[in-house]
Amino acid sequence: MIQGKNEEAFFPRKLRMGMVGGGRDAFIGAVHRRAACLEGGVELIAGAFSSTAEKSKASGRDLYLDDSRVYGTWQEMVEVEAKLPSDQRLDFVSVVVPNHMHYPIIISLVEAGFNVVTDKPLCHTVEQARSIVRAVKAAGVLFGVTYNYSGYPMVRQARHMVASGALGEIRKVAVEYPQGWLAERVELTGQKQAEWRTDPARCGITGAIGDLGSHAEHLMSYITGLQIADICADLTVFVEGRQLDDDGAMLLRFTNGAKGMLSASQVCTGQENTLSIRVWGTKAGLEWRQETPMFLRVRSNSGPEQLYTPGNPWVCEAAADGTRLPAGHPEAYIEAFANIYKNYTDTLRARILGIEPSEIMLDFPTAEDGARGVAFLHKVVESSQSAVKWTPFDFAL
Amino acid sequence: MIQGKNEEAFFPRKLRMGMVGGGRDAFIGAVHRRAACLEGGVELIAGAFSSTAEKSKASGRDLYLDDSRVYGTWQEMVEVEAKLPSDQRLDFVSVVVPNHMHYPIIISLVEAGFNVVTDKPLCHTVEQARSIVRAVKAAGVLFGVTYNYSGYPMVRQARHMVASGALGEIRKVAVEYPQGWLAERVELTGQKQAEWRTDPARCGITGAIGDLGSHAEHLMSYITGLQIADICADLTVFVEGRQLDDDGAMLLRFTNGAKGMLSASQVCTGQENTLSIRVWGTKAGLEWRQETPMFLRVRSNSGPEQLYTPGNPWVCEAAADGTRLPAGHPEAYIEAFANIYKNYTDTLRARILGIEPSEIMLDFPTAEDGARGVAFLHKVVESSQSAVKWTPFDFAL
Amino acid sequence: MIQGKNEEAFFPRKLRMGMVGGGRDAFIGAVHRRAACLEGGVELIAGAFSSTAEKSKASGRDLYLDDSRVYGTWQEMVEVEAKLPSDQRLDFVSVVVPNHMHYPIIISLVEAGFNVVTDKPLCHTVEQARSIVRAVKAAGVLFGVTYNYSGYPMVRQARHMVASGALGEIRKVAVEYPQGWLAERVELTGQKQAEWRTDPARCGITGAIGDLGSHAEHLMSYITGLQIADICADLTVFVEGRQLDDDGAMLLRFTNGAKGMLSASQVCTGQENTLSIRVWGTKAGLEWRQETPMFLRVRSNSGPEQLYTPGNPWVCEAAADGTRLPAGHPEAYIEAFANIYKNYTDTLRARILGIEPSEIMLDFPTAEDGARGVAFLHKVVESSQSAVKWTPFDFAL
Amino acid sequence: MIQGKNEEAFFPRKLRMGMVGGGRDAFIGAVHRRAACLEGGVELIAGAFSSTAEKSKASGRDLYLDDSRVYGTWQEMVEVEAKLPSDQRLDFVSVVVPNHMHYPIIISLVEAGFNVVTDKPLCHTVEQARSIVRAVKAAGVLFGVTYNYSGYPMVRQARHMVASGALGEIRKVAVEYPQGWLAERVELTGQKQAEWRTDPARCGITGAIGDLGSHAEHLMSYITGLQIADICADLTVFVEGRQLDDDGAMLLRFTNGAKGMLSASQVCTGQENTLSIRVWGTKAGLEWRQETPMFLRVRSNSGPEQLYTPGNPWVCEAAADGTRLPAGHPEAYIEAFANIYKNYTDTLRARILGIEPSEIMLDFPTAEDGARGVAFLHKVVESSQSAVKWTPFDFAL
Repeated sequence: MIQGKNEEAFFPRKLRMGMVGGGRDAFIGAVHRRAACLEGGVELIAGAFSSTAEKSKASGRDLYLDDSRVYGTWQEMVEVEAKLPSDQRLDFVSVVVPNHMHYPIIISLVEAGFNVVTDKPLCHTVEQARSIVRAVKAAGVLFGVTYNYSGYPMVRQARHMVASGALGEIRKVAVEYPQGWLAERVELTGQKQAEWRTDPARCGITGAIGDLGSHAEHLMSYITGLQIADICADLTVFVEGRQLDDDGAMLLRFTNGAKGMLSASQVCTGQENTLSIRVWGTKAGLEWRQETPMFLRVRSNSGPEQLYTPGNPWVCEAAADGTRLPAGHPEAYIEAFANIYKNYTDTLRARILGIEPSEIMLDFPTAEDGARGVAFLHKVVESSQSAVKWTPFDFAL
Repeated sequence: MIQGKNEEAFFPRKLRMGMVGGGRDAFIGAVHRRAACLEGGVELIAGAFSSTAEKSKASGRDLYLDDSRVYGTWQEMVEVEAKLPSDQRLDFVSVVVPNHMHYPIIISLVEAGFNVVTDKPLCHTVEQARSIVRAVKAAGVLFGVTYNYSGYPMVRQARHMVASGALGEIRKVAVEYPQGWLAERVELTGQKQAEWRTDPARCGITGAIGDLGSHAEHLMSYITGLQIADICADLTVFVEGRQLDDDGAMLLRFTNGAKGMLSASQVCTGQENTLSIRVWGTKAGLEWRQETPMFLRVRSNSGPEQLYTPGNPWVCEAAADGTRLPAGHPEAYIEAFANIYKNYTDTLRARILGIEPSEIMLDFPTAEDGARGVAFLHKVVESSQSAVKWTPFDFAL
Repeated sequence: MIQGKNEEAFFPRKLRMGMVGGGRDAFIGAVHRRAACLEGGVELIAGAFSSTAEKSKASGRDLYLDDSRVYGTWQEMVEVEAKLPSDQRLDFVSVVVPNHMHYPIIISLVEAGFNVVTDKPLCHTVEQARSIVRAVKAAGVLFGVTYNYSGYPMVRQARHMVASGALGEIRKVAVEYPQGWLAERVELTGQKQAEWRTDPARCGITGAIGDLGSHAEHLMSYITGLQIADICADLTVFVEGRQLDDDGAMLLRFTNGAKGMLSASQVCTGQENTLSIRVWGTKAGLEWRQETPMFLRVRSNSGPEQLYTPGNPWVCEAAADGTRLPAGHPEAYIEAFANIYKNYTDTLRARILGIEPSEIMLDFPTAEDGARGVAFLHKVVESSQSAVKWTPFDFAL
Repeated sequence: MIQGKNEEAFFPRKLRMGMVGGGRDAFIGAVHRRAACLEGGVELIAGAFSSTAEKSKASGRDLYLDDSRVYGTWQEMVEVEAKLPSDQRLDFVSVVVPNHMHYPIIISLVEAGFNVVTDKPLCHTVEQARSIVRAVKAAGVLFGVTYNYSGYPMVRQARHMVASGALGEIRKVAVEYPQGWLAERVELTGQKQAEWRTDPARCGITGAIGDLGSHAEHLMSYITGLQIADICADLTVFVEGRQLDDDGAMLLRFTNGAKGMLSASQVCTGQENTLSIRVWGTKAGLEWRQETPMFLRVRSNSGPEQLYTPGNPWVCEAAADGTRLPAGHPEAYIEAFANIYKNYTDTLRARILGIEPSEIMLDFPTAEDGARGVAFLHKVVESSQSAVKWTPFDFAL
């Protein structure tokens, strides 16, 4: 599918990408652009980058876009771009705005027939999430959510080892995501990233759990395939004056009898971005840490701990497919992010060519994953407010 | 106090140590002997080492004891030794039997006026614990409990940094103790250590939490000084046919508003002895891991992570006092264990000499610490069985 | 200079990049393309990608190039592209062919007035290197060499700390680059990367030292600024039948009195890409390892070891400038490679705009660096063949 | 042999140990005492601890020795103790004085028929070393040298893996021992450890190489069994005013064609005690680091890196024999030191009982090892002073 690897399924042009959000001062938009373009098969063509027309135009110039494809509002972009002839029309649009704007933009894009990639979380409410899933089905568009940590090769190796039975039956999962940057009230200093992440209007019903815990939940689900049965959560606002949780921890029970611990925090002073997961089964256990993402440690009671690294012939196909360099040449956050885009766009190319995408291509988070994530956040908040120990997580679309 | 350091307070002989338990095939007894004798100021003189007289005698011979001071039963030992003249009498007795025998032996020793060191947990029930505390007070003996992990120099440095305010106000604590050796039903294979640890009659009301969680609780309390207000626990028996929990996790709330997570497990396949603690305050956070005990990591939002190691002039006095070697020459489990004995016996020497022990000498776990630990285990079990989220931990002696 | 950061110095279009080499089956060409384009300011426009016209055309199609800008030979490419009008003409050309082809291509490009980026080593002989340096000066073109490891933010921080005196006077340097992939005679299995790296005709007078030691030499020079005075080397061919050294080690003396050890190997079984450097000065020492490139350890005799990581306010400006993500979000090999291109292209943009490039922009390896590297390889081989201990390294351009 | 493990070979009493050196203010003497006594089968009975009779007596009191067995001079000790009846006579004597006093004391003890353990290096000159070896043979005494790092379980596992062929044929060895504590002229501040280590009269012809390089040489020889054929060394005095090398590095050639690098330093600022060794063979490589001694990393080109740790059923018998605790319970420097004493004293007990010591018991450094070590130091100094690249190491006793 990727250029040159298969002459029969050769895709003859770069995909045309649009973007909503991601103007000057934004952080994640630039990551999406680098990630989408890393393989050389995608070109950014159009965008509505900012809340004001002037800023949007300036951002478009920074990105060398044709001025005619840079819009003052996302509504204008959807309206105009939807009418373009097929040889100019965007192949997909990435949505990288703050959380509260996800829903209307996504719905509008999907209903106008655009394929969409969106940052997580999918949206604010479970109702919105259900609407999006329904709209995606109705429109028949391809939809992806950038739970980017599942793009790391060693995360895929972890998933492979669980799925292949190398760990035996899973008994226990510990996933955590401590950060420390909001240990003080940074949102009052003009730091834009801190401002919207602590503002209920823009961030939704939860802070740390929504921002970080949602990644943890997806990583856990992605690797283990386990389904949460019950949640017992305790969210905390540590920094005085803040409205949303800046810390949370929970016990989990899974439908197969396994148990879990999940925590996320923005006030773990000195922690940078310390997402980690450990999974223990009847036969073996594994550990992966985002800050040293090249290493997957696998432990058992029957031999020495093993250190899996990418680029070696003994890693699984999905890991190999997301690895660009020989062993020992580290790849990191942007490359993992790019792997989500790679699979999404390969699937998109297959669709356009009318061929069947491979299992590996289909390995990217979907609207359903995003919806489950939104439901999870709501149940966590519900559990945290409850005096009863266990809150069932009975999510169904 | 220690030989030679202070001529005025010179203690002119080795302390005479007795031991109950710790015969052939036992594990922890040999650790206690090595730990007690490492500084050269203690000599094992007497003991009742095993459940049968023959085994006890054989163990005494292994240890080169005078046959007349080796007893067939602990009752006989208490009776005979209590009558010896002061120049032969034991200075203290270490109790290293399985949990269920702690109580009668401790009470008997204390009431006979012996100074006692016991392995943890102190005893089975809260009532027993209260009795022991009362008996110790009544008899005026010196009593210590070997929560040995608090003897590590870098654990002491951690405690010092919390106490001195270097971390600011503590907000969050994560302590965990995963082991994997009981991931299968090892207790059916004749492994003695596994047998008694999975037997309610000998081990008490809890397995993993009692064996490991009790260390975690003490480590957390020792370092942070926080008091648990409420517990929300979930204990699990993973291995079929087992009666006691082999895994447990809990959320904690502390009286100062801090939050905690504590877990312990015997079924985390491939984990050896992975006790660890992390503490985050408003100013900084710290991390210590038992399997690499020389390293204490301290992190903040205002400068690079710092790696504290023993033997350096910038560590606290209590850490320095428990360090025998220059920086970079690792000390480990036995040395940390020895530090508990060092402080206990230094305090004992001070008492005998009629001088005031220093604050550092007094830094060893007491009967009160042991009693709190027993109460903790009971509250954890109660919480695990409760459908209400929070079980108050309102322990008072 | 970079788009949008400075309205006055705004560069209004993507730079046009050409490439010689890097067709299908090549490894480093794809890295150069990803690295050059990561910031979004460069577009690949033209290339002569392979040794046959057919392969070159196929590679051009893979990359979505206009067929008219894809050439069957590099000679044709130089000839045709040199005549294009300025609004189509390539801004620079990257040379990513095997070592033995560097010289004629570089000279040809430079003499035709193209700005050039080349992979290392610069060329085969010292004479060639001198010619290139002269030609670059004569033509006035901008020339860069991708000693990519110097693009890592923590390598820049290391350089900064040495330059700022934080380490005091440098006394000792240990740099090493062990790999293990050639521990067996892989070159006989059809592995193309192994084939040319073990072939004197294509690789030059040295194998491991040329391939890996050259990176080590540059990394050391870049960080410390020290000049080698004398070399005492011992190169080895371990794998039978191989012609070039697959292992080498040397002692170094520097002009300031410092001492060094440098080694490189392709037969350190099991090592992936374990480039590392340690530098010790009178005040402090530092350590950086390529396989965990986010971490720079700084040690002194006066306080705890410190762990520097990118994205924090306490790192130097050059490190910050090469960091795209917040602290804890790892960047790796491709991003470091991209930093070399970023500085090279920013300098190029400044030249085109007629403004002065900043010191940070100018931080990329030059033809002079490349020439010194070639001279180093020759002196190492000379030393290895000598029975005299010290071979002076008296390189001057 | 050890108490209780074998009823037939039961040794009925503690061994009687004497000591020369190791009084108040000494460092290594206390380590020897703890190490010798850790297993409970040795008792310190007599000693000449210091250079003055008064200090020696005070030290004896600190150690609770009978005053009659504490001597003012080592000569007096040898004379008196040699005449004691066999039931009081010392089983062995440990020599822990500064280097320059080793020779006369050792010779005197050996000629008086005492079994001897000595700290390294064995003595100052190769002639002395040869004399000692001859005297030991003539007297038939048991002689040991405390190259203590070879007592670590994972070092033994490394040796086992080399010997068993798990690494294939050895090609390359890298051993280094950087310390930083003498980066400034600490010897002028009254620090006694620094004083004698920088004084040619007491320390011998070399400083860093004698103190640290000798450990490195032994560790390398112990693990690999390789014999050095040629040495190319460069010793340096970095700190002005110092007479002995405080840094050294060398290239090595072994008789089997393998190559090596060995370095040692006292001026690597910030390094504590960073002895490490890496060995690469045709099949696999290994790495061990003294500051985290529980971990042995084994790497190959055919599977993930493996982490060996003590206490597991898959480690070799020699490692298991030197491990006291279950997996994950770290043992460290003193325990490794104790393993040297354990083997030495087990061999001694076997001798006394007239039975054959096992291969494991015999695994401790001998006078021959010590002599080779002394010869090595002299050849290193010779090489460092030579303008010829390779100095043959043609040592024979």
